[in-house]
Amino acid sequence: MPSDTVLIIGGGPAGLYAARSVADLGAPVMLVEKREHLGGTPVTANYASFTPHLEDAETSMQRMVNEVSNDPQIEILLQTRVTAGGGGPGDFAVTLASRSGETRELSVGSIIVATGFDHFDPGRETQMYGYYEYEDVLTLVDAEKMLKAKQFVRPSTGEPPKRVCFIQCVGSRDRRLGNEYCSKVCCGVATKEAIEIKELLPDAKVFIFYIDMRMYGFWEDQLYWKAQEEHKVNFIRGIVTEVLRRGDSLVIKGEDTTMGRPMEIPMDVVILSVGMVPSAGTIEIAKVLNLPRERHGFLETVGAPLDTVTTPVPGIFVAGAAAGPKDIEDSISMAGTAAMKAVSIVRRQLRQAATTVSAGGGGE
Amino acid sequence: MPSDTVLIIGGGPAGLYAARSVADLGAPVMLVEKREHLGGTPVTANYASFTPHLEDAETSMQRMVNEVSNDPQIEILLQTRVTAGGGGPGDFAVTLASRSGETRELSVGSIIVATGFDHFDPGRETQMYGYYEYEDVLTLVDAEKMLKAKQFVRPSTGEPPKRVCFIQCVGSRDRRLGNEYCSKVCCGVATKEAIEIKELLPDAKVFIFYIDMRMYGFWEDQLYWKAQEEHKVNFIRGIVTEVLRRGDSLVIKGEDTTMGRPMEIPMDVVILSVGMVPSAGTIEIAKVLNLPRERHGFLETVGAPLDTVTTPVPGIFVAGAAAGPKDIEDSISMAGTAAMKAVSIVRRQLRQAATTVSAGGGGE
Repeated sequence: MPSDTVLIIGGGPAGLYAARSVADLGAPVMLVEKREHLGGTPVTANYASFTPHLEDAETSMQRMVNEVSNDPQIEILLQTRVTAGGGGPGDFAVTLASRSGETRELSVGSIIVATGFDHFDPGRETQMYGYYEYEDVLTLVDAEKMLKAKQFVRPSTGEPPKRVCFIQCVGSRDRRLGNEYCSKVCCGVATKEAIEIKELLPDAKVFIFYIDMRMYGFWEDQLYWKAQEEHKVNFIRGIVTEVLRRGDSLVIKGEDTTMGRPMEIPMDVVILSVGMVPSAGTIEIAKVLNLPRERHGFLETVGAPLDTVTTPVPGIFVAGAAAGPKDIEDSISMAGTAAMKAVSIVRRQLRQAATTVSAGGGGE
Repeated sequence: MPSDTVLIIGGGPAGLYAARSVADLGAPVMLVEKREHLGGTPVTANYASFTPHLEDAETSMQRMVNEVSNDPQIEILLQTRVTAGGGGPGDFAVTLASRSGETRELSVGSIIVATGFDHFDPGRETQMYGYYEYEDVLTLVDAEKMLKAKQFVRPSTGEPPKRVCFIQCVGSRDRRLGNEYCSKVCCGVATKEAIEIKELLPDAKVFIFYIDMRMYGFWEDQLYWKAQEEHKVNFIRGIVTEVLRRGDSLVIKGEDTTMGRPMEIPMDVVILSVGMVPSAGTIEIAKVLNLPRERHGFLETVGAPLDTVTTPVPGIFVAGAAAGPKDIEDSISMAGTAAMKAVSIVRRQLRQAATTVSAGGGGE
């Protein structure tokens, strides 16, 4: 008989939501995570909170972890990787390898890949904006960690900064780097962080330098208007070309494209709004499961826009940022849909097997 | 015994995808549509194609309709409205009324609301940009209809226009009108239409006047760069304050905010990029089912961003633009997730009923 187990690879928001959803539909789940804990990037990268409502990220992720723990339908394997896979719907043969080197072979009915994204490294090609040179140049991720600790300081002095700016589109919308796509969430995340900085340091001046503020949908008033009207965050349409050190502070140089004039502004802290790139785990699983990647390097899907989760390999689905830049709502909605698809396909295999008169049978 | 039927209200992309998904999970579906045909707004409004890949909208919607037709698990009721509803998971009592006035009462296990959006009416409050005054001022929807017919002309003359412009954010990001949100899809739709106009009329000059081009994710290169590089569409950051008639053509007046100078440009056709507002059907069903609406008037959801489809009424879920501005991928992903939730909840009710020793039983 075919297996009705759904293998879910990745224990971040998308993987956890998919696991809960598959189990709610009554199918067994095997949830594989390469790290020693569940929760994914929000936990590993010490996110303070989620857009747009600023819920505490650790509490939210712990709730999602609790919802899959101690469920007899969900087997959780930490520090485990998928090292081989083949087959098709109802009968995928996969090999799992634990950190200690033990391997285990098993049959699963369908697979959901939820291996997420990595943050763009601003030193990847050229040393962008002095990230590896100046202590007070941070990324969104570094800032998130300080905001989680509720202490936003200038790293070089340990003192609260008086002037902070965000530079948008670092590693996104940039043909030179090969990342032509927009990373979708950085406008929202930077604005959320700007609000949090102003809440901690009401006297600080906070600037966001942007090309287009992509505050789509309700983010427009929930975050963008709120930041401007309630928190006096300064949004400046402009291009920052350089970050330099002058004395003991930083200076950003560039052009204010609304005013049409050059700008040179001293800053205590500069935050680079780094985008999303395909994660190491996504690139690895693409090789293992023979999943094609699209031109930006993320996992390819078929049938867009009227299908969001189906990969070219029958029986394998994708959820979340493994398929491209996604906000948290995208990841959750994709995960629920991937769960629906994964369970539907294993049930179909079971029905077909039950109605087929076969001598000997397949599978396990 | 509780009912395991899922009632789906609305036969557009979200409702059709939800119907197929629920049936794939093995639960019976009742799909209710107030119009005389399935397909929703893409069909009613004569959409030419979808973003970002320009698939033919009629063909795509017909395929979705075919996928739910002639399935014994899916009962389709056209020209039918839900006029009353009450109860809870496993046992909602709903009243359906057909156009001829016949009513029917039935019990369903859970409900998915997919009642979509309406296009903003640019004459709603003040007569914006002369939409009801000048024949050559169109909306995105009017333009879509011409593009579907593969004939893009200046309505007042029937001749191909030489100069066409789009004005973004008409009815969106506008506190004066009460629509503070961004409608999310208009930047993508206008850019798609601009490409289609240039394909039909390579010699026409096409302009898009915008505040921010919200070409998130892969739309950045799939649509925005493509429009500029392959089709020479002109994107101008600017505010158009007035559309006037001068002689037999139109003139737009406003400010180019990048160049910091006033502009006054003759145009043959002006297209207003109208946003999304809650549909009449969404407002109606909110009353019937006692679903709260959020501050912008769309259906309220709970648990965002880690839940995208759950309404405050247990057992009732929402998919697509009934919950706010959504692109087509959002609607599809929400529909799959709503299907997963709706089936999970009816199955849970059935399991609970089966394990409860009860005298007399409930339901029906």
